[in-house]
Amino acid sequence: MGTAFDLSLYLVTDPGLTAARGLVPTVEAAVKGGTTLVQLRDPKAHGRALVEQARALKALLAPRAIPLIINDRLDVALAAGADGVHLGQDDIAPADARAMAGGRLIIGLSVGTPQELADSDLAGVDYLGVGPVKVTGTKADAGAAIGPEGLAAIRALTALPLVGIGGIDAGIAGEVIRAGADGVAVVSAICGAPDPEAAARQLRDAMARAR
Amino acid sequence: MGTAFDLSLYLVTDPGLTAARGLVPTVEAAVKGGTTLVQLRDPKAHGRALVEQARALKALLAPRAIPLIINDRLDVALAAGADGVHLGQDDIAPADARAMAGGRLIIGLSVGTPQELADSDLAGVDYLGVGPVKVTGTKADAGAAIGPEGLAAIRALTALPLVGIGGIDAGIAGEVIRAGADGVAVVSAICGAPDPEAAARQLRDAMARAR
Repeated sequence: MGTAFDLSLYLVTDPGLTAARGLVPTVEAAVKGGTTLVQLRDPKAHGRALVEQARALKALLAPRAIPLIINDRLDVALAAGADGVHLGQDDIAPADARAMAGGRLIIGLSVGTPQELADSDLAGVDYLGVGPVKVTGTKADAGAAIGPEGLAAIRALTALPLVGIGGIDAGIAGEVIRAGADGVAVVSAICGAPDPEAAARQLRDAMARAR
Repeated sequence: MGTAFDLSLYLVTDPGLTAARGLVPTVEAAVKGGTTLVQLRDPKAHGRALVEQARALKALLAPRAIPLIINDRLDVALAAGADGVHLGQDDIAPADARAMAGGRLIIGLSVGTPQELADSDLAGVDYLGVGPVKVTGTKADAGAAIGPEGLAAIRALTALPLVGIGGIDAGIAGEVIRAGADGVAVVSAICGAPDPEAAARQLRDAMARAR
């Protein structure tokens, strides 16, 4: 593992939802509101554009000591000097990513069910993204919603830090924390909010009340 | 640069065209027919599947000392122990790839016009893929066809080894060599042929007559 990280409020970017405000201004507002970690996710973007986006985010986040994670593309993460990579079950295997990254990167892995957890090689994995907690419109290939109870079932099976992800907003964030998550990962609840800073603060407040 | 390489007959795989026969059997037949270099290209595949395909091809090609190049995904190339990566103008910049790969990998770059060549940072680039020579059905985002004369114009501007690519078959391969290419890169002419071994041999014969 590389940088220390705090999973409390984990922002995942979405190119459609950040288009109007702009990627960097959206993330900057979210960080002002208390976002603790940022994942750049843009599955349709090419490598060069991703590296450029990642460098722009890195310039914003590094002085604030907020880790930047890149979705899927380990090569982009290494090229841009990002702090980590988040891998889905169809992406490069975490052990392969760890072999390439050495100790430099935080490596996250998505798991949706206890079976998927059992089938995953967790060597080199630093944290888990668990979900989808609710049905989500921002990830077409996400599995069936598992609810906070599904997250609690996975929580019972691993000591790794984990965030709940998928359709999480301030209304359910507290329940996700009570189910055992170390934090929540959100897309629409911040990127799609009229005021991303206020939205981040509401999520933090909802989690603080639940802890 | 890593391994020595021979660009004479450069096979680029296509998932649709190799589906019936299978990826590895198609490449094996092409190699028997005289293919000198193989690029794995499957833009829609996820990282884990690409790594598996690359390892299967590596097991076939390494004993025959035929380099394996991965399209676009430097992380996949490194994870699978491939010999190189081929980058388009929208992919990670060659200099970034070289910084990550060190001296381990052959790095190829696509260029379509003299202007694109002039605008490219060629530090770390080992060879160029120049085209599309003809209109092609296997690459939706390829630019306008440049013909052998367009390739000759680029040939005059660089000392880098280069292959012509895009719609090349045995009928035009000789003309591409006479225009100054070190070899031809083909997709359909081998992957879509009823007998990939014979198709590769025909391409080699056509180029031998032109040299």
